[in-house]
Amino acid sequence: MNQPKRIDGRRIADEQVAQIAQRVAALTEQGKRPPGLAVVMVGDNPASDVYVRNKIRRCEQAGILSREHRLDERTTEEDLLGLLDSLNQDPQIDGILVQLPLPAHLEEGRILKRISPAKDVDGFHPVNVGLLGIGDARALVPCTPAGCVILAKEVLGDLTGKHVVVVGRSNIVGKPAAQLFLAEDCSVTLVHSKSANGAELARQADILVVAVGRPQMVDESWVKPGAVVIDVGINRIDTGEGTRLVGDVDYQRVAPVAGAITPVPGGVGPMTIAGLLNNTLTAYEAVE
Amino acid sequence: MNQPKRIDGRRIADEQVAQIAQRVAALTEQGKRPPGLAVVMVGDNPASDVYVRNKIRRCEQAGILSREHRLDERTTEEDLLGLLDSLNQDPQIDGILVQLPLPAHLEEGRILKRISPAKDVDGFHPVNVGLLGIGDARALVPCTPAGCVILAKEVLGDLTGKHVVVVGRSNIVGKPAAQLFLAEDCSVTLVHSKSANGAELARQADILVVAVGRPQMVDESWVKPGAVVIDVGINRIDTGEGTRLVGDVDYQRVAPVAGAITPVPGGVGPMTIAGLLNNTLTAYEAVE
Repeated sequence: MNQPKRIDGRRIADEQVAQIAQRVAALTEQGKRPPGLAVVMVGDNPASDVYVRNKIRRCEQAGILSREHRLDERTTEEDLLGLLDSLNQDPQIDGILVQLPLPAHLEEGRILKRISPAKDVDGFHPVNVGLLGIGDARALVPCTPAGCVILAKEVLGDLTGKHVVVVGRSNIVGKPAAQLFLAEDCSVTLVHSKSANGAELARQADILVVAVGRPQMVDESWVKPGAVVIDVGINRIDTGEGTRLVGDVDYQRVAPVAGAITPVPGGVGPMTIAGLLNNTLTAYEAVE
Repeated sequence: MNQPKRIDGRRIADEQVAQIAQRVAALTEQGKRPPGLAVVMVGDNPASDVYVRNKIRRCEQAGILSREHRLDERTTEEDLLGLLDSLNQDPQIDGILVQLPLPAHLEEGRILKRISPAKDVDGFHPVNVGLLGIGDARALVPCTPAGCVILAKEVLGDLTGKHVVVVGRSNIVGKPAAQLFLAEDCSVTLVHSKSANGAELARQADILVVAVGRPQMVDESWVKPGAVVIDVGINRIDTGEGTRLVGDVDYQRVAPVAGAITPVPGGVGPMTIAGLLNNTLTAYEAVE
Protein backbone atom coordinates (compact mmCIF):
# COMPACT_ATOMS: atom_id res chain seq x y z
CA MET A 1 0.00 0.00 0.00
CA ASN A 2 2.82 2.40 0.81
CA GLN A 3 4.74 1.77 -2.36
CA PRO A 4 2.82 4.02 -4.80
CA LYS A 5 2.94 6.85 -2.25
CA ARG A 6 6.72 6.93 -2.26
CA ILE A 7 7.97 9.92 -4.25
CA ASP A 8 11.03 8.72 -6.15
CA GLY A 9 13.43 11.65 -5.99
CA ARG A 10 16.18 9.67 -7.71
CA ARG A 11 14.06 9.02 -10.79
CA ILE A 12 12.80 12.59 -10.96
CA ALA A 13 16.31 13.99 -10.50
CA ASP A 14 17.56 11.67 -13.26
CA GLU A 15 14.89 13.06 -15.57
CA GLN A 16 15.88 16.63 -14.65
CA VAL A 17 19.54 15.91 -15.33
CA ALA A 18 18.66 14.25 -18.65
CA GLN A 19 16.71 17.36 -19.70
CA ILE A 20 19.62 19.61 -18.74
CA ALA A 21 21.98 17.31 -20.67
CA GLN A 22 19.80 17.71 -23.78
CA ARG A 23 19.85 21.50 -23.48
CA VAL A 24 23.64 21.49 -23.01
CA ALA A 25 24.09 19.13 -25.96
CA ALA A 26 22.05 21.50 -28.13
CA LEU A 27 24.42 24.33 -27.15
CA THR A 28 27.60 22.45 -27.87
CA GLU A 29 26.19 21.21 -31.20
CA GLN A 30 25.84 24.89 -32.10
CA GLY A 31 29.56 25.26 -31.40
CA LYS A 32 29.07 27.13 -28.16
CA ARG A 33 31.16 26.56 -25.06
CA PRO A 34 29.56 24.38 -22.37
CA PRO A 35 28.39 25.88 -19.06
CA GLY A 36 31.06 25.71 -16.35
CA LEU A 37 30.82 25.11 -12.60
CA ALA A 38 33.65 25.69 -10.12
CA VAL A 39 33.45 23.79 -6.83
CA VAL A 40 35.64 25.13 -4.04
CA MET A 41 36.38 22.92 -1.05
CA VAL A 42 38.58 23.85 1.89
CA GLY A 43 40.14 21.11 4.03
CA ASP A 44 39.15 17.46 4.31
CA ASN A 45 35.64 16.57 5.36
CA PRO A 46 34.48 13.05 4.41
CA ALA A 47 30.81 14.06 4.03
CA SER A 48 31.70 17.10 1.92
CA ASP A 49 33.95 14.87 -0.12
CA VAL A 50 31.02 12.61 -1.03
CA TYR A 51 28.81 15.58 -1.90
CA VAL A 52 31.48 17.18 -4.08
CA ARG A 53 32.15 13.94 -5.95
CA ASN A 54 28.42 13.53 -6.62
CA LYS A 55 28.20 17.06 -7.97
CA ILE A 56 31.17 16.56 -10.28
CA ARG A 57 29.77 13.24 -11.52
CA ARG A 58 26.38 14.82 -12.25
CA CYS A 59 28.06 17.68 -14.12
CA GLU A 60 29.81 15.12 -16.33
CA GLN A 61 26.48 13.40 -17.02
CA ALA A 62 24.98 16.72 -18.09
CA GLY A 63 27.93 17.87 -20.21
CA ILE A 64 28.68 20.74 -17.83
CA LEU A 65 32.36 21.58 -17.43
CA SER A 66 33.33 21.20 -13.77
CA ARG A 67 36.45 22.41 -12.08
CA GLU A 68 37.43 21.40 -8.57
CA HIS A 69 39.48 23.70 -6.34
CA ARG A 70 40.71 21.88 -3.25
CA LEU A 71 42.39 24.18 -0.78
CA ASP A 72 44.41 23.34 2.30
CA GLU A 73 42.63 23.31 5.68
CA ARG A 74 44.77 26.29 6.72
CA THR A 75 44.01 28.46 3.67
CA THR A 76 43.69 32.12 4.66
CA GLU A 77 40.53 34.10 4.05
CA GLU A 78 42.56 36.40 1.80
CA ASP A 79 43.63 33.53 -0.44
CA LEU A 80 40.11 32.12 -0.62
CA LEU A 81 38.65 35.55 -1.46
CA GLY A 82 41.36 35.97 -4.11
CA LEU A 83 40.35 32.65 -5.71
CA LEU A 84 36.70 33.73 -5.72
CA ASP A 85 37.64 37.04 -7.35
CA SER A 86 39.46 35.22 -10.13
CA LEU A 87 36.55 32.79 -10.62
CA ASN A 88 34.15 35.75 -10.72
CA GLN A 89 36.19 37.04 -13.69
CA ASP A 90 36.69 33.69 -15.40
CA PRO A 91 34.68 33.59 -18.66
CA GLN A 92 34.59 29.74 -18.66
CA ILE A 93 32.91 29.63 -15.25
CA ASP A 94 29.19 30.37 -14.88
CA GLY A 95 28.59 28.98 -11.41
CA ILE A 96 30.68 29.04 -8.23
CA LEU A 97 29.95 26.81 -5.30
CA VAL A 98 31.79 26.95 -1.99
CA GLN A 99 31.19 23.64 -0.23
CA LEU A 100 30.07 24.13 3.38
CA PRO A 101 30.93 23.82 6.19
CA LEU A 102 34.15 25.84 6.07
CA PRO A 103 36.91 25.60 8.69
CA ALA A 104 36.15 27.79 11.73
CA HIS A 105 38.73 30.48 10.92
CA LEU A 106 36.90 31.41 7.69
CA GLU A 107 33.83 33.64 8.00
CA GLU A 108 31.12 32.04 5.93
CA GLY A 109 28.95 35.16 5.51
CA ARG A 110 31.78 37.29 4.12
CA ILE A 111 32.98 34.53 1.82
CA LEU A 112 29.59 33.71 0.31
CA LYS A 113 28.93 37.42 -0.33
CA ARG A 114 32.14 37.61 -2.36
CA ILE A 115 30.72 35.32 -5.03
CA SER A 116 29.26 37.41 -7.84
CA PRO A 117 25.44 37.25 -7.59
CA ALA A 118 25.41 36.30 -11.28
CA LYS A 119 27.47 33.15 -10.50
CA ASP A 120 25.89 32.38 -7.11
CA VAL A 121 24.42 28.98 -8.05
CA ASP A 122 23.57 28.19 -4.41
CA GLY A 123 21.29 31.27 -4.34
CA PHE A 124 22.58 32.37 -0.93
CA HIS A 125 23.81 35.88 -1.84
CA PRO A 126 21.61 38.69 -0.43
CA VAL A 127 21.01 40.00 -3.95
CA ASN A 128 19.54 36.66 -5.05
CA VAL A 129 17.56 36.35 -1.81
CA GLY A 130 16.19 39.84 -2.53
CA LEU A 131 15.36 39.09 -6.17
CA LEU A 132 13.49 35.97 -5.03
CA GLY A 133 11.76 38.08 -2.36
CA ILE A 134 10.41 40.56 -4.91
CA GLY A 135 9.50 37.85 -7.40
CA ASP A 136 12.16 38.79 -9.98
CA ALA A 137 12.61 35.92 -12.43
CA ARG A 138 16.35 36.63 -12.68
CA ALA A 139 16.94 35.27 -9.16
CA LEU A 140 19.18 32.22 -8.81
CA VAL A 141 17.15 30.26 -6.26
CA PRO A 142 18.42 27.85 -3.59
CA CYS A 143 18.59 24.33 -4.94
CA THR A 144 16.96 22.28 -2.18
CA PRO A 145 13.73 24.28 -1.90
CA ALA A 146 13.53 24.43 -5.70
CA GLY A 147 13.66 20.62 -5.62
CA CYS A 148 10.82 20.52 -3.06
CA VAL A 149 8.58 22.51 -5.42
CA ILE A 150 9.36 20.20 -8.35
CA LEU A 151 8.54 17.11 -6.26
CA ALA A 152 5.22 18.61 -5.11
CA LYS A 153 4.31 19.44 -8.71
CA GLU A 154 5.18 15.89 -9.81
CA VAL A 155 2.47 14.62 -7.45
CA LEU A 156 -0.16 17.37 -7.65
CA GLY A 157 0.41 19.23 -10.92
CA ASP A 158 -0.68 22.86 -10.60
CA LEU A 159 -0.27 24.04 -7.00
CA THR A 160 -2.51 27.15 -7.17
CA GLY A 161 -4.46 27.68 -3.94
CA LYS A 162 -2.88 24.77 -2.07
CA HIS A 163 -1.93 25.35 1.54
CA VAL A 164 1.75 24.66 2.15
CA VAL A 165 3.11 24.47 5.69
CA VAL A 166 6.90 24.74 5.95
CA VAL A 167 8.36 23.50 9.24
CA GLY A 168 11.70 25.20 9.90
CA ARG A 169 12.83 28.69 8.93
CA SER A 170 16.45 28.34 7.84
CA ASN A 171 17.89 30.67 5.21
CA ILE A 172 18.92 27.65 3.13
CA VAL A 173 15.61 25.78 3.03
CA GLY A 174 12.62 26.99 5.06
CA LYS A 175 12.46 30.67 4.14
CA PRO A 176 13.24 30.29 0.41
CA ALA A 177 10.81 27.33 0.22
CA ALA A 178 8.08 29.63 1.55
CA GLN A 179 8.91 32.20 -1.16
CA LEU A 180 8.95 29.60 -3.94
CA PHE A 181 5.61 28.03 -2.99
CA LEU A 182 4.15 31.54 -2.70
CA ALA A 183 5.31 32.17 -6.27
CA GLU A 184 3.32 29.04 -7.23
CA ASP A 185 0.21 30.80 -5.85
CA CYS A 186 0.03 28.67 -2.72
CA SER A 187 -1.05 29.91 0.70
CA VAL A 188 2.06 29.46 2.83
CA THR A 189 2.54 29.01 6.57
CA LEU A 190 5.96 29.00 8.22
CA VAL A 191 6.23 27.32 11.63
CA HIS A 192 9.34 26.75 13.74
CA SER A 193 10.66 25.90 17.18
CA LYS A 194 9.00 28.96 18.75
CA SER A 195 5.57 28.28 17.24
CA ALA A 196 2.86 27.75 19.85
CA ASN A 197 0.88 25.27 17.74
CA GLY A 198 3.15 23.91 15.02
CA ALA A 199 1.57 20.46 14.76
CA GLU A 200 -1.94 21.92 14.66
CA LEU A 201 -1.00 24.23 11.78
CA ALA A 202 0.93 21.46 10.00
CA ARG A 203 -2.17 19.24 10.18
CA GLN A 204 -3.95 21.69 7.85
CA ALA A 205 -1.36 21.44 5.11
CA ASP A 206 -2.05 20.07 1.66
CA ILE A 207 1.73 20.03 1.27
CA LEU A 208 3.96 19.67 4.34
CA VAL A 209 7.65 20.53 3.95
CA VAL A 210 9.84 19.60 6.92
CA ALA A 211 13.36 21.02 7.27
CA VAL A 212 14.34 21.14 10.94
CA GLY A 213 17.37 18.86 11.25
CA ARG A 214 15.84 16.76 14.05
CA PRO A 215 15.60 13.02 13.35
CA GLN A 216 12.03 11.73 12.93
CA MET A 217 10.53 14.69 14.81
CA VAL A 218 7.34 14.80 12.73
CA ASP A 219 4.91 11.91 13.30
CA GLU A 220 1.38 11.23 12.05
CA SER A 221 -0.13 13.77 14.48
CA TRP A 222 1.33 16.51 12.21
CA VAL A 223 -0.18 15.20 8.97
CA LYS A 224 -3.61 15.58 7.40
CA PRO A 225 -4.74 12.34 5.73
CA GLY A 226 -3.81 12.54 2.08
CA ALA A 227 -1.24 15.34 2.43
CA VAL A 228 1.94 15.40 0.36
CA VAL A 229 4.90 15.19 2.77
CA ILE A 230 8.32 16.41 1.69
CA ASP A 231 11.11 15.54 4.09
CA VAL A 232 14.27 17.65 3.69
CA GLY A 233 16.10 16.24 6.73
CA ILE A 234 19.12 13.97 6.42
CA ASN A 235 20.16 12.74 9.87
CA ARG A 236 22.53 9.91 10.73
CA ILE A 237 21.28 7.95 13.74
CA ASP A 238 22.79 5.11 15.75
CA THR A 239 20.64 1.98 15.53
CA GLY A 240 22.72 -0.05 17.99
CA GLU A 241 24.02 -2.08 15.05
CA GLY A 242 25.64 0.73 13.15
CA THR A 243 24.22 3.95 11.77
CA ARG A 244 21.57 4.72 9.22
CA LEU A 245 20.11 7.81 7.55
CA VAL A 246 16.68 9.07 8.56
CA GLY A 247 14.72 12.20 7.77
CA ASP A 248 13.01 14.75 9.98
CA VAL A 249 9.78 12.79 9.39
CA ASP A 250 9.05 9.40 10.97
CA TYR A 251 8.44 7.63 7.66
CA GLN A 252 6.95 4.41 9.08
CA ARG A 253 4.31 6.30 11.05
CA VAL A 254 3.56 9.02 8.50
CA ALA A 255 3.49 6.95 5.28
CA PRO A 256 0.15 5.24 6.11
CA VAL A 257 -1.52 8.66 6.56
CA ALA A 258 0.13 10.70 3.82
CA GLY A 259 -1.09 10.87 0.23
CA ALA A 260 2.54 10.85 -0.93
CA ILE A 261 5.86 11.09 0.87
CA THR A 262 9.55 11.44 0.04
CA PRO A 263 11.88 8.78 1.45
CA VAL A 264 15.28 9.50 3.03
CA PRO A 265 17.58 8.85 1.30
CA GLY A 266 16.32 9.06 -2.29
CA GLY A 267 13.80 11.88 -1.93
CA VAL A 268 14.84 15.52 -1.77
CA GLY A 269 18.58 14.83 -1.67
CA PRO A 270 19.07 13.96 -5.37
CA MET A 271 16.97 16.97 -6.37
CA THR A 272 19.46 19.38 -4.81
CA ILE A 273 22.18 18.49 -7.29
CA ALA A 274 19.74 18.70 -10.21
CA GLY A 275 18.91 22.22 -8.99
CA LEU A 276 22.58 23.11 -8.93
CA LEU A 277 23.04 22.03 -12.56
CA ASN A 278 19.90 23.90 -13.53
CA ASN A 279 21.18 27.09 -11.86
CA THR A 280 24.52 26.72 -13.65
CA LEU A 281 22.73 26.53 -16.97
CA THR A 282 20.51 29.50 -16.03
CA ALA A 283 23.58 31.56 -15.10
CA TYR A 284 25.18 30.57 -18.42
CA GLU A 285 22.10 31.57 -20.41
CA ALA A 286 22.08 35.00 -18.75
CA VAL A 287 25.50 35.81 -20.24
CA GLU A 288 25.68 33.81 -23.49
CA MET B 1 -17.50 49.25 24.04
CA ASN B 2 -15.43 49.60 20.86
CA GLN B 3 -13.49 52.59 22.03
CA PRO B 4 -10.73 50.90 24.11
CA LYS B 5 -10.13 48.45 21.27
CA ARG B 6 -9.18 51.20 18.86
CA ILE B 7 -5.41 51.24 18.31
CA ASP B 8 -4.39 54.87 18.14
CA GLY B 9 -1.75 54.98 15.42
CA ARG B 10 -1.49 58.76 15.60
CA ARG B 11 -0.55 58.74 19.28
CA ILE B 12 1.91 55.87 18.84
CA ALA B 13 3.49 57.53 15.79
CA ASP B 14 3.78 60.78 17.76
CA GLU B 15 5.64 58.90 20.49
CA GLN B 16 7.94 57.32 17.90
CA VAL B 17 8.70 60.69 16.32
CA ALA B 18 9.33 62.21 19.78
CA GLN B 19 11.82 59.44 20.55
CA ILE B 20 13.59 59.99 17.23
CA ALA B 21 13.66 63.73 17.92
CA GLN B 22 15.38 63.06 21.26
CA ARG B 23 18.01 60.89 19.63
CA VAL B 24 18.63 63.52 16.92
CA ALA B 25 18.82 66.29 19.54
CA ALA B 26 21.46 64.29 21.42
CA LEU B 27 23.51 64.08 18.20
CA THR B 28 23.33 67.77 17.38
CA GLU B 29 24.16 68.67 21.01
CA GLN B 30 27.36 66.71 20.46
CA GLY B 31 28.09 69.00 17.53
CA LYS B 32 27.34 66.38 14.93
CA ARG B 33 25.46 67.07 11.71
CA PRO B 34 21.78 66.06 11.68
CA PRO B 35 20.55 63.11 9.60
CA GLY B 36 19.34 64.16 6.15
CA LEU B 37 16.50 62.92 3.94
CA ALA B 38 16.07 63.75 0.27
CA VAL B 39 12.56 63.43 -1.14
CA VAL B 40 12.32 63.25 -4.92
CA MET B 41 9.00 63.91 -6.61
CA VAL B 42 8.37 63.91 -10.36
CA GLY B 43 5.39 65.80 -11.75
CA ASP B 44 2.25 66.96 -9.98
CA ASN B 45 0.07 64.46 -8.17
CA PRO B 46 -2.22 65.90 -5.49
CA ALA B 47 -2.11 62.78 -3.28
CA SER B 48 1.69 62.54 -3.53
CA ASP B 49 1.85 66.21 -2.70
CA VAL B 50 0.03 65.64 0.60
CA TYR B 51 2.26 62.68 1.46
CA VAL B 52 5.45 64.59 0.67
CA ARG B 53 4.38 67.60 2.74
CA ASN B 54 3.59 65.32 5.70
CA LYS B 55 7.00 63.70 5.43
CA ILE B 56 8.79 67.05 5.33
CA ARG B 57 6.76 68.31 8.32
CA ARG B 58 7.58 65.20 10.34
CA CYS B 59 11.27 65.56 9.49
CA GLU B 60 11.17 69.10 10.85
CA GLN B 61 9.54 67.85 14.06
CA ALA B 62 12.31 65.31 14.50
CA GLY B 63 15.18 67.64 13.66
CA ILE B 64 16.01 65.73 10.50
CA LEU B 65 17.27 67.82 7.59
CA SER B 66 14.94 67.39 4.64
CA ARG B 67 15.52 68.39 1.07
CA GLU B 68 12.83 68.36 -1.56
CA HIS B 69 13.61 67.77 -5.23
CA ARG B 70 10.63 68.51 -7.43
CA LEU B 71 11.19 67.55 -11.03
CA ASP B 72 9.13 68.36 -14.06
CA GLU B 73 6.59 65.80 -15.28
CA ARG B 74 8.66 65.34 -18.46
CA THR B 75 11.99 64.72 -16.70
CA THR B 76 14.00 62.09 -18.54
CA GLU B 77 15.11 58.87 -16.89
CA GLU B 78 18.70 59.93 -17.48
CA ASP B 79 18.21 63.18 -15.55
CA LEU B 80 16.45 61.41 -12.68
CA LEU B 81 19.18 58.75 -12.47
CA GLY B 82 21.78 61.53 -12.51
CA LEU B 83 20.09 63.22 -9.55
CA LEU B 84 20.02 59.91 -7.66
CA ASP B 85 23.73 59.39 -8.37
CA SER B 86 24.55 62.79 -6.92
CA LEU B 87 22.36 62.17 -3.85
CA ASN B 88 24.03 58.78 -3.38
CA GLN B 89 27.34 60.68 -3.13
CA ASP B 90 26.06 63.57 -1.00
CA PRO B 91 27.53 63.38 2.53
CA GLN B 92 24.64 65.43 3.99
CA ILE B 93 22.04 62.96 2.77
CA ASP B 94 21.45 59.63 4.56
CA GLY B 95 18.11 58.67 3.09
CA ILE B 96 16.68 58.99 -0.42
CA LEU B 97 13.01 58.57 -1.13
CA VAL B 98 11.47 58.62 -4.61
CA GLN B 99 7.78 59.35 -4.20
CA LEU B 100 5.63 56.88 -6.12
CA PRO B 101 3.84 56.63 -8.48
CA LEU B 102 6.18 57.93 -11.18
CA PRO B 103 5.02 59.13 -14.61
CA ALA B 104 4.58 56.23 -17.02
CA HIS B 105 7.70 56.96 -19.10
CA LEU B 106 9.98 56.30 -16.10
CA GLU B 107 10.73 52.66 -15.21
CA GLU B 108 10.16 52.32 -11.50
CA GLY B 109 12.24 49.15 -11.01
CA ARG B 110 15.36 50.59 -12.63
CA ILE B 111 15.03 53.88 -10.77
CA LEU B 112 14.55 52.37 -7.32
CA LYS B 113 17.54 50.08 -7.86
CA ARG B 114 19.73 53.12 -8.57
CA ILE B 115 19.36 54.35 -4.97
CA SER B 116 22.32 53.16 -2.92
CA PRO B 117 21.13 50.30 -0.64
CA ALA B 118 22.71 52.20 2.27
CA LYS B 119 20.38 55.18 1.62
CA ASP B 120 17.33 53.16 0.58
CA VAL B 121 15.02 54.29 3.42
CA ASP B 122 11.97 52.74 1.76
CA GLY B 123 13.66 49.32 1.99
CA PHE B 124 12.65 48.37 -1.56
CA HIS B 125 16.14 47.70 -3.03
CA PRO B 126 16.80 43.97 -3.67
CA VAL B 127 19.84 44.13 -1.37
CA ASN B 128 17.70 45.29 1.55
CA VAL B 129 14.98 42.77 0.69
CA GLY B 130 17.70 40.10 0.73
CA LEU B 131 19.23 41.26 4.02
CA LEU B 132 15.75 41.17 5.60
CA GLY B 133 15.24 37.72 4.07
CA ILE B 134 18.36 36.29 5.71
CA GLY B 135 17.69 38.07 9.01
CA ASP B 136 20.62 40.50 8.74
CA ALA B 137 20.12 43.36 11.22
CA ARG B 138 21.68 45.83 8.76
CA ALA B 139 18.62 45.69 6.50
CA LEU B 140 16.66 48.91 6.00
CA VAL B 141 13.13 47.52 6.28
CA PRO B 142 9.98 48.79 4.55
CA CYS B 143 8.23 51.40 6.71
CA THR B 144 4.60 50.27 6.61
CA PRO B 145 5.16 46.65 7.69
CA ALA B 146 7.60 47.86 10.36
CA GLY B 147 4.74 50.04 11.66
CA CYS B 148 2.41 47.01 11.73
CA VAL B 149 4.84 45.15 14.00
CA ILE B 150 5.13 48.12 16.36
CA LEU B 151 1.34 48.41 16.62
CA ALA B 152 0.96 44.69 17.36
CA LYS B 153 3.61 44.91 20.07
CA GLU B 154 1.86 47.94 21.61
CA VAL B 155 -1.19 45.73 22.18
CA LEU B 156 0.35 42.34 22.93
CA GLY B 157 3.91 42.98 24.11
CA ASP B 158 6.15 40.03 23.22
CA LEU B 159 4.89 38.31 20.05
CA THR B 160 6.75 34.99 20.39
CA GLY B 161 4.69 32.04 19.22
CA LYS B 162 1.72 34.11 18.05
CA HIS B 163 0.11 33.14 14.77
CA VAL B 164 0.07 36.01 12.30
CA VAL B 165 -1.96 35.79 9.11
CA VAL B 166 -1.04 38.35 6.45
CA VAL B 167 -3.68 38.88 3.76
CA GLY B 168 -2.04 40.20 0.58
CA ARG B 169 1.43 39.48 -0.79
CA SER B 170 2.71 42.76 -2.19
CA ASN B 171 6.44 43.53 -2.17
CA ILE B 172 5.74 46.75 -0.26
CA VAL B 173 3.62 45.37 2.60
CA GLY B 174 2.55 41.72 2.64
CA LYS B 175 5.81 39.90 1.97
CA PRO B 176 8.04 42.10 4.16
CA ALA B 177 5.40 42.01 6.95
CA ALA B 178 5.64 38.20 6.87
CA GLN B 179 9.45 38.42 7.23
CA LEU B 180 9.26 40.94 10.08
CA PHE B 181 6.70 38.95 12.12
CA LEU B 182 8.79 35.82 11.52
CA ALA B 183 11.77 37.67 13.00
CA GLU B 184 9.58 38.29 16.08
CA ASP B 185 9.28 34.49 16.42
CA CYS B 186 5.70 34.35 15.19
CA SER B 187 4.22 31.59 13.07
CA VAL B 188 3.29 33.33 9.84
CA THR B 189 0.73 32.53 7.16
CA LEU B 190 0.48 34.44 3.89
CA VAL B 191 -2.83 34.29 2.03
CA HIS B 192 -3.85 36.14 -1.14
CA SER B 193 -6.33 36.27 -3.99
CA LYS B 194 -5.42 32.77 -5.17
CA SER B 195 -5.80 31.16 -1.73
CA ALA B 196 -8.46 28.45 -1.63
CA ASN B 197 -9.44 29.13 2.00
CA GLY B 198 -8.22 32.62 2.93
CA ALA B 199 -11.00 33.44 5.40
CA GLU B 200 -10.66 30.07 7.12
CA LEU B 201 -6.93 30.57 7.62
CA ALA B 202 -7.41 34.22 8.67
CA ARG B 203 -9.90 33.08 11.32
CA GLN B 204 -7.05 31.28 13.11
CA ALA B 205 -4.90 34.39 13.45
CA ASP B 206 -3.92 35.93 16.76
CA ILE B 207 -2.81 38.90 14.66
CA LEU B 208 -4.48 39.60 11.31
CA VAL B 209 -2.73 42.00 8.93
CA VAL B 210 -4.76 43.03 5.89
CA ALA B 211 -3.10 44.71 2.90
CA VAL B 212 -5.07 43.98 -0.25
CA GLY B 213 -6.26 47.38 -1.50
CA ARG B 214 -9.93 46.36 -1.67
CA PRO B 215 -12.33 48.51 0.37
CA GLN B 216 -13.85 46.73 3.38
CA MET B 217 -13.19 43.27 1.92
CA VAL B 218 -12.56 41.64 5.30
CA ASP B 219 -15.63 41.22 7.51
CA GLU B 220 -16.19 39.44 10.84
CA SER B 221 -16.18 36.01 9.18
CA TRP B 222 -12.40 36.43 8.77
CA VAL B 223 -11.68 37.24 12.42
CA LYS B 224 -11.22 35.09 15.49
CA PRO B 225 -12.85 36.67 18.58
CA GLY B 226 -10.18 38.63 20.42
CA ALA B 227 -7.72 38.85 17.50
CA VAL B 228 -5.63 41.97 16.89
CA VAL B 229 -6.60 43.36 13.47
CA ILE B 230 -4.22 45.64 11.59
CA ASP B 231 -5.71 47.29 8.53
CA VAL B 232 -3.16 48.62 6.04
CA GLY B 233 -5.67 49.61 3.36
CA ILE B 234 -6.45 53.22 2.51
CA ASN B 235 -9.27 53.37 -0.03
CA ARG B 236 -11.36 56.36 -1.06
CA ILE B 237 -15.00 55.38 -1.56
CA ASP B 238 -18.00 57.32 -2.80
CA THR B 239 -20.71 57.55 -0.13
CA GLY B 240 -23.24 59.30 -2.36
CA GLU B 241 -22.64 62.51 -0.39
CA GLY B 242 -18.96 62.84 -1.18
CA THR B 243 -16.03 60.51 -0.55
CA ARG B 244 -14.48 59.08 2.57
CA LEU B 245 -11.49 56.93 3.45
CA VAL B 246 -12.00 53.31 4.44
CA GLY B 247 -9.65 50.43 5.05
CA ASP B 248 -9.54 46.91 3.64
CA VAL B 249 -11.39 45.82 6.80
CA ASP B 250 -15.06 46.56 7.45
CA TYR B 251 -14.46 48.35 10.76
CA GLN B 252 -18.08 48.47 11.92
CA ARG B 253 -18.54 44.73 11.53
CA VAL B 254 -15.09 43.61 12.73
CA ALA B 255 -14.63 45.92 15.75
CA PRO B 256 -17.20 44.08 17.93
CA VAL B 257 -15.34 40.78 17.37
CA ALA B 258 -11.71 41.92 17.43
CA GLY B 259 -9.64 42.28 20.59
CA ALA B 260 -8.08 45.41 19.11
CA ILE B 261 -8.23 47.08 15.70
CA THR B 262 -6.61 49.93 13.83
CA PRO B 263 -8.91 52.61 12.39
CA VAL B 264 -8.55 54.12 8.91
CA PRO B 265 -7.40 56.84 8.90
CA GLY B 266 -5.31 57.17 12.05
CA GLY B 267 -4.03 53.60 12.33
CA VAL B 268 -1.18 52.27 10.20
CA GLY B 269 -0.87 55.43 8.05
CA PRO B 270 0.91 57.65 10.57
CA MET B 271 3.29 54.81 11.45
CA THR B 272 4.68 54.73 7.91
CA ILE B 273 6.22 58.18 8.23
CA ALA B 274 7.62 57.34 11.68
CA GLY B 275 9.28 54.33 10.06
CA LEU B 276 10.77 56.55 7.37
CA LEU B 277 12.35 58.85 9.96
CA ASN B 278 13.60 55.84 11.88
CA ASN B 279 15.24 54.40 8.76
CA THR B 280 16.87 57.74 8.01
CA LEU B 281 18.38 57.76 11.50
CA THR B 282 19.48 54.13 11.13
CA ALA B 283 21.17 54.92 7.79
CA TYR B 284 22.87 57.91 9.43
CA GLU B 285 24.13 55.81 12.35
CA ALA B 286 25.63 53.26 9.94
CA VAL B 287 27.98 55.91 8.50
CA GLU B 288 28.58 58.38 11.35
